[in-house]
Amino acid sequence: MVEVKSINPRTGMMLRNLGDGSTACDVDAACCSAAAAATALEALGRSGRASMLRMMACKFESRRAEVIGIADQETGLGIERLNGELSRTTFQMRLFADVLDDGSYLEAAIDHAGETALGPRPDLRRMLVPIGPVAVFGASNFPLAFSTPGGDTVSALAAGSPVLIKAHDSHPSTSNLCAELLRGVIRDVGLPDGTVGLLHGQAAGAQLVTHPAVKAVGFTGSSTAGRALLDLIGRRPDPIPLYGELASLNPVVVTERAAKRRGSSIALGLTTSFTASGGQMCTKPGLIFIPVGDAGDDTVAQMREHLRDAPPFVLLNERIRDSFAADAGALRSGRSVTVVHAGDVGMTDGFYATALLLEVAVAELNAEACEEHFGPVAIIARYRDEGELLDRLGTLPGSLTATIHSEPADAEFAQAITALLRQRAGRLVYDEYPTGVAVSWAQHHGGPWPSTNTTHTSVGPTAIRRFLRPLTWQNSPERLLPLELREDCVEIPRRIDGQLRLASTRPGVIHHSVCT
Amino acid sequence: MVEVKSINPRTGMMLRNLGDGSTACDVDAACCSAAAAATALEALGRSGRASMLRMMACKFESRRAEVIGIADQETGLGIERLNGELSRTTFQMRLFADVLDDGSYLEAAIDHAGETALGPRPDLRRMLVPIGPVAVFGASNFPLAFSTPGGDTVSALAAGSPVLIKAHDSHPSTSNLCAELLRGVIRDVGLPDGTVGLLHGQAAGAQLVTHPAVKAVGFTGSSTAGRALLDLIGRRPDPIPLYGELASLNPVVVTERAAKRRGSSIALGLTTSFTASGGQMCTKPGLIFIPVGDAGDDTVAQMREHLRDAPPFVLLNERIRDSFAADAGALRSGRSVTVVHAGDVGMTDGFYATALLLEVAVAELNAEACEEHFGPVAIIARYRDEGELLDRLGTLPGSLTATIHSEPADAEFAQAITALLRQRAGRLVYDEYPTGVAVSWAQHHGGPWPSTNTTHTSVGPTAIRRFLRPLTWQNSPERLLPLELREDCVEIPRRIDGQLRLASTRPGVIHHSVCT
Repeated sequence: MVEVKSINPRTGMMLRNLGDGSTACDVDAACCSAAAAATALEALGRSGRASMLRMMACKFESRRAEVIGIADQETGLGIERLNGELSRTTFQMRLFADVLDDGSYLEAAIDHAGETALGPRPDLRRMLVPIGPVAVFGASNFPLAFSTPGGDTVSALAAGSPVLIKAHDSHPSTSNLCAELLRGVIRDVGLPDGTVGLLHGQAAGAQLVTHPAVKAVGFTGSSTAGRALLDLIGRRPDPIPLYGELASLNPVVVTERAAKRRGSSIALGLTTSFTASGGQMCTKPGLIFIPVGDAGDDTVAQMREHLRDAPPFVLLNERIRDSFAADAGALRSGRSVTVVHAGDVGMTDGFYATALLLEVAVAELNAEACEEHFGPVAIIARYRDEGELLDRLGTLPGSLTATIHSEPADAEFAQAITALLRQRAGRLVYDEYPTGVAVSWAQHHGGPWPSTNTTHTSVGPTAIRRFLRPLTWQNSPERLLPLELREDCVEIPRRIDGQLRLASTRPGVIHHSVCT
Repeated sequence: MVEVKSINPRTGMMLRNLGDGSTACDVDAACCSAAAAATALEALGRSGRASMLRMMACKFESRRAEVIGIADQETGLGIERLNGELSRTTFQMRLFADVLDDGSYLEAAIDHAGETALGPRPDLRRMLVPIGPVAVFGASNFPLAFSTPGGDTVSALAAGSPVLIKAHDSHPSTSNLCAELLRGVIRDVGLPDGTVGLLHGQAAGAQLVTHPAVKAVGFTGSSTAGRALLDLIGRRPDPIPLYGELASLNPVVVTERAAKRRGSSIALGLTTSFTASGGQMCTKPGLIFIPVGDAGDDTVAQMREHLRDAPPFVLLNERIRDSFAADAGALRSGRSVTVVHAGDVGMTDGFYATALLLEVAVAELNAEACEEHFGPVAIIARYRDEGELLDRLGTLPGSLTATIHSEPADAEFAQAITALLRQRAGRLVYDEYPTGVAVSWAQHHGGPWPSTNTTHTSVGPTAIRRFLRPLTWQNSPERLLPLELREDCVEIPRRIDGQLRLASTRPGVIHHSVCT
């Protein structure tokens, strides 16, 4: 049994020893408790779960300083960034509460019995129902928004599915505190504790995804770990869906005109973006296409300037620091690679690194440069002309995002770039930067392999669908139907006999919930 | 290279030798042509693709006699059933055309740039876009509606994704004719032939799911074959989604009161349902729970009567006949099994079988009896009391459907049965029969493993989502946006700044397209 240790990445020293990881019996018990809690969580109903999520938001805000303090100790992400992350986390809880009030996520549809071109049709009523207990893997780089109280947890609870959280070993104390806060609300609304389980250790994670009670998995992490979990799931008697947010290169293209006209602001924007949170963002721009020539040279030179006096970044843990060091070595030794700014590690006892920025001709780009490398590293690929750029874009792997900086006069070229990049990304960003993923209805955080392994998002309201499944009632007595499928329900949008109808009482406007 | 042979299941004799199956080069060429056709198919737009689907419906109706004639020769399903299936196929094409006109399937959402509780948010616009070329595996038991011109093909074409069809080896000539009709329309609307590819042979199927150009797979078949395809996909450098409709037990519960009050009609309904199309329906009721005692005895006796003089059923192919014979032997030899009606094979040269109906006490139900067995076979499980029934229902595998025959006085019992069965099925059927899957908005044809491996449906409008993926445009110039995400589009429902809005011009009413 591996011990669970809380480590301060700024010093490399242990903050706390939390004892043994979860045992096989712990995992079994948590899974069975989650399964037992499913009925009560669903029975709480949409408005009950919406209240619960709003109470959770208030709870986290009331304990903001404490949560952020522990998270900062364990992750080194800094108070400002973590303050923003906590706000994002509670914003997300309230948005999902609004999604529950809105009710369209249920996709309710009623086809009344009647004659069709194919003969009589029975009464059919369809909506989405909770999938059952969900295993959620916390991410190292977002100890709040993508971990214990994060998007996957909130999606599952909103859906009505209990969660079993595998704490990330980079922030076990933060995870414990967050789970305690979630459970406080769980108890306040009268749900069983098993509604939110928390487990520690890699063995617990492996056991979770193979446990019969677990019906879906939300995972944020590397594509290697994602593959390993998929393999475990493939050996289940009943394979279940894994929703993985994996590795993403997030290419950026800067046109000649854009470099000429706003090279300075692009240089600052890109530098800020690829080093944000120590380059440990899933949307970090890892590969930046900049034209050869003066305008491009200037842009690169300004990026170098921005990096010159930057203090080193603290990385989340020792493994990330070591892997950054190994990647830096390998990338630097690539053919014809120029070092714009050297990424060094090991200056102190903590897990620090300076930014690594490399430059290479597009023709010399190797496979390794076209993969995600975690940490403050980016590669600038210099292209000679539009044809060379387009050829290379057509070979890139899938990403969460792809970014284009162009000018109005580039219209045709921008369209050609868009045509190639939209096949390789889940979000196209124009003249902005890929980091900073707004939580909103129109957001999509997903993309072709290896950025995700499904067509789902892990940010925004549509993320809830991952933890629901459709169910149709045929010729059901009214009393056995869920409220939302009964004849007289007018509170949610429904498709009735093929016609989409809005709710008669539209909640619409976002609730400004008051914390008491 | 295995030869492709068209066999008449009524005689076991070869109708035609179609020569060699598709070569590796054929598959490569078809996949590359499909990839090349993707842009044109998407550019055809929603209304262009809707017209195309309506033209396909007309084309199939104009060649109805010929299509049905060949399909009947190859499948033995009979003219009446195949007539219905062709009507279902064209109904489906027209319904998906309506879905395109309606436009809500795009899930269009716009969040305008603005201030939020988390600071400024960029302009975000999301909708679903075609996933790319889709491999479709034709099903043996529906040579039209779930094969070459079937639901998967129509879903993909509606989505804007080219299709590569693996013809089922049970009806290769039907597949060839259907592909020719589809391609005729493809050409008429000016699309490249590669929009619809057709391939023959098992090797081609395996190559298809591993081909880099293929982005998703629609499959209807056994869970063993589904697992094999999932394994192949797991070894791709970029795993893709497989939407499999696999094996389904489709349990039925008859309460004591229902048996007493309408045992006769239930006996007729169940017998008709489990032997429909020779028991070769994915929604065939395979396990029927009937109470012990007089009412149950009567129901079983009447089922025996209905089967007594039924002529033998022709099965789709030799493999199904052989596997039915093997299953029959194994099931009959189960402990304490009573044969209500013997299923015999081999009376003629063709692939014929009589219905097999077995009876066993719930306490003696073994694992094999709780699996799908293809062909005209059903098992009646006699239960002593409500407790015994509920205990057993809680252990059943996932199914496409679960059916409950009860009376109003059974309200509480029916609720308890529903609570257990809804976890194990995608459609709950009350006082009707699971076979006969209406194509409509509220339909769901899917369920927990092993009935499907995802939370998607393969029947009804929501099936289109399998072949789409979300894409978000951030801060995009208007000219680079798809029409449906531009500011002034009012033709489809969209969610704007969190508010769902209906189209201003609602197509709504189903087009009664006139074939010219």
